[in-house]
Order: sequence, then C-alpha cells, then structure tokens
Amino acid sequence: MPDSHPQPSATDDPLAIICGGGSLPFAVADAVLRHGRRAVLFPLRGFGDPAAVERYPHHWIALGQFGRMCRLASAERCRDVVFIGNLTRPSLHEIRLDWQTLRLLPRIVRLYRGGDDRLLSGIGRIFEEHGFRLLGAHEVAPEILVREGAMGKRAPSERDQADIATGLAVLAAMGPFDIGQAAVVAAGHVLAVEAAEGTDAMLSRVADLRRLGRIRYPVGVGVLVKAPKVGQDRRFDLPSIGPQTVAGVIRAGLAGLAVVAGGTIMAEPEVVATAADRGKIFVVGVPDPQRQ
Amino acid sequence: MPDSHPQPSATDDPLAIICGGGSLPFAVADAVLRHGRRAVLFPLRGFGDPAAVERYPHHWIALGQFGRMCRLASAERCRDVVFIGNLTRPSLHEIRLDWQTLRLLPRIVRLYRGGDDRLLSGIGRIFEEHGFRLLGAHEVAPEILVREGAMGKRAPSERDQADIATGLAVLAAMGPFDIGQAAVVAAGHVLAVEAAEGTDAMLSRVADLRRLGRIRYPVGVGVLVKAPKVGQDRRFDLPSIGPQTVAGVIRAGLAGLAVVAGGTIMAEPEVVATAADRGKIFVVGVPDPQRQ
Repeated sequence: MPDSHPQPSATDDPLAIICGGGSLPFAVADAVLRHGRRAVLFPLRGFGDPAAVERYPHHWIALGQFGRMCRLASAERCRDVVFIGNLTRPSLHEIRLDWQTLRLLPRIVRLYRGGDDRLLSGIGRIFEEHGFRLLGAHEVAPEILVREGAMGKRAPSERDQADIATGLAVLAAMGPFDIGQAAVVAAGHVLAVEAAEGTDAMLSRVADLRRLGRIRYPVGVGVLVKAPKVGQDRRFDLPSIGPQTVAGVIRAGLAGLAVVAGGTIMAEPEVVATAADRGKIFVVGVPDPQRQ
Repeated sequence: MPDSHPQPSATDDPLAIICGGGSLPFAVADAVLRHGRRAVLFPLRGFGDPAAVERYPHHWIALGQFGRMCRLASAERCRDVVFIGNLTRPSLHEIRLDWQTLRLLPRIVRLYRGGDDRLLSGIGRIFEEHGFRLLGAHEVAPEILVREGAMGKRAPSERDQADIATGLAVLAAMGPFDIGQAAVVAAGHVLAVEAAEGTDAMLSRVADLRRLGRIRYPVGVGVLVKAPKVGQDRRFDLPSIGPQTVAGVIRAGLAGLAVVAGGTIMAEPEVVATAADRGKIFVVGVPDPQRQ
C-alpha cells in the first residue's frame, strides 16, 4: 500500500515512465535500462507510439486516469515517476476521467489556468501527495541532456554567436511572463518569439515569411535559440530538440540552432548531428546563462 | 530650388503625403484639407489605392524613386513630407531605382539591416538632408490619434484590464529588442507575441490555435494589446488599427483590443466602433505607460 508521503525509493524499484508522443520516452527508457533499473511504461492513449511501446512492460492509460495510473504503478511497486514526451494540448475527446481525477479536477482546472509553470509544478505536488516522487527525465537519464559544443561538423560564426546572445537576452526578458522558450534572431533582428504556438509552428512561420519575401537576410543568416524558462521547475518542462527541430530550422533558412547545455533534452543525438550536417546547419549547446 | 538644410515651412506650402496601402493616407489627407492646407499625394505603386487617389492631386511613384519624388515635391513647392500607410515588405520587382536612390543605396542597405527603428529614423535624416522635413502623420492630422476610453459600447472587464496591464508589461520588456508592437494575453497567459509577422498574422495564429483546441480559455477571454515601441521615433512607425484589426480580434475569439491613447493611429473611428459593437468586442484607448 502506498504511503501518503513521498520517500526516497530504493533504486531497485522499477521506474514508472508516463509517455507522451515522440521518441524521447524510449530514449529515456533505454538509458534507464542501461543503468540497470527496470522501467514500466504508461503510454498515454493518442500520444504514445504503439509499436515502440510493445518492446517494454507497459500499461496504456488515458489522460484523466490518474486513479488508474496510481493503482497500476503501485501494483508494479513503482515509487518514482517520470513524465516525458510531447503532449500537444489534448482535445476533450481524448480525456477519460476516473474518480480519482474527478476529485482532483477543481484543483487541476485552477492550475490549468495559471500558465505552464504553475500547471506542471502543481501536478508534481499532486503526485507527491499520492506517495510518488515525480522526477525529471534528465535525473534518471542524464545522457539525454545536451552538452556544450557543436553536435555536427558546423559551428556558429561570430555573427551567429551574436544572434545567439541576443536570443538568450530576449528569452531572459520574457522570463517573468511564463511565455515560450524559443526565439529566432537574424543579424540582430528578432524575427519571431514563441508563445502558445510551439517551436515547430514558429519555425514554419519564419519559413513562410521567407517565402513571402519578408525576411531581409539571405538563407544561412539567423539562429533558433531555445532556453529553459527563467525560474522554471526543471523537473518537468525542459525544452527538447530532435530531428523535427533540425528539419524546421533548415526549412526556415537559418544558419543553425542553439540550445542551453544541461538545460535541453534530445532523443537521438546521432540522428540530429547527421541531419544537421546534411542540411548544412549547426546545432550547438551553449553555456547556461542562468548559471553564470 | 530646395535648400540643403531643413527650414520650418510656412503652412501654406502644400503637404506631400507619400501613400502606402490602406485607408489611412486618405484619412490624413482629408484632415489636412479640413485644416485648410493643400495636400499632394505621392502614392506608391502596388500599395496606394488607385480609385481613392484620383480624388486628390497626385503623382505616382515607385519604391526606389527617391530622386523623382524629390523633383516632383519641389516642383509642387512642398517642404513637409508625411509617409503613411501599410508597406508590407516589398518584393524586388516593385522597386524602381533612380539615380538619386542608387547613390543612397549603400546607406539604405546598412539601415535596412539594423531593424525597423534604425531604418525609419535613418530615412528621416535622408529626407532632411534633401531639404524636406519629415513629419509624423499625427502632427499634421492629430485627429487620427486614438483617444482614451472605449470606442464602442463595450468596455474592458476587470480581468480584461489585468490582461491589458500584462500585455503592456510584455511589450515594455521587449522594447530593448526592437520587436513588434503587439501581444495577445488571456487570463494572464501570454498566447502570442508579434515580431516580424505583423499583427494580422499574429491574430490569425491565435484563431488557428483556438480552432485546434490549443487555447485554454473560452471565446471572450483575452485581449490584443498594441503599444508603440519603447524609445521609438514616433514620427514614423506608430502602431495603427482599423476595421481589419477588429475583424482579426473577433476571429481570434478575444474580448477586445487595447491600444495606447495618443500613441496609436486609426483611419475610420466610426467604422471601427460599429464593427466592434457588431462583433461584441471592446476597443479601448489606455493611458500611455511610457508617459506616466
């Protein structure tokens, strides 16, 4: 029976991984297995990849089945829980509310209205009250964190480095407002700032502006900069990049993309490096400006 | 023959109005005529509205015909010049370079790379060096400035007022970066920040996010906030709103739109008020946070 308070769990407890979309959940699961710990996946219906899930012990859950998830995770003797993967704002028909969730609903609705940061840290507290410990994916699989330096063959030029610095300054200025985690800067000019639309949509917008002739700079000028929000609870919503981000940067005609080393997660570093080299862009991890 | 230095011009000189797109140029021309001053329009090919232009003395010019514009404006005895109207980033085939412009081109290219503020104030200096005085449209037609208070029947609720304050704070934080002049905030959550895409595109994005179920708030929650950039040369790029902005706000499902009184221009206040009432949104001029 689970305690009502969190306890440090012995590492031979299996890890519960609640899986959103994309390849990150499986990169995390594989890393955890390599570290000698068992993992039980809880893929979310409509988000988790069914074929990939088959390779691991797993239980499908729907969004809203918090009670079901608690019961199954307890039966599997899990104490530590990681949530990882894309979870594009779900539509209502994907949600299945169980009693446990229903009881929590007023609280979740209040959290939902308060911006991403409050939502995520509030959900962390709810897990703890039910005897689980919610960990960041990078705490159980540190190898998914981006390291400092270039990932492929290319490195940012001096102008790119200046654009990266401007992008980081823009994101720091936006910190107090719990906005997105990315911006596009070209030759000192801020072309796009991410808010609710997400990074991929922002990159599509830059590609559209270029096609319409509304970007002043040739292909190969400009960078995508991603950084964790200032003051963010890094257990949860760390920015992530993958092959899709690289493809978006190439389509937007940018020189490359810069992320904060140690503050960004990445599923497939080799695939990212190869895609970057093929598309002639750089992908670089830069020192964390919040830790300097 | 024009002097090489600007001089205060007598107000019986006709005013040269270089016209971009939209109805603002004609609202300005009509206001100037009501003030008892003659006006000569210089509509830009591809932007000025040919039917409306016919009602005024005018000379068509192409983008890049700075020499031609100087000659024609001097022949018309104009000293004061106003530029007003939309000028979506032009595509190359709309540009016709004359000799005068060619000589200035390296300088214009340098300005063009420096962000909107530098571009616009630099072009102001070029006009002055050629014997003209570049004025803000609101200096010759103050009635186009938005005043404080609601324009239609609706007024912002308390929650809307809090969102307006958040939007103004976001725009102030973005000031140092010469980014766009608008943001969308709903119940304290920043949904969109404008950069190179412009206000209409940003509103379309919010409408799209709503259609995709990615906005957490019902129709009628959220505001569009527009404000002049901090430290901006207000002779030129003041934000403007019109019936198109109101239509965008309605499509995005927002409660209304707030602009800075005295720092925003508007072509057709009656049309805007009627459209706002019909769409059940508010349109309000708020006190200028930069002047408090």
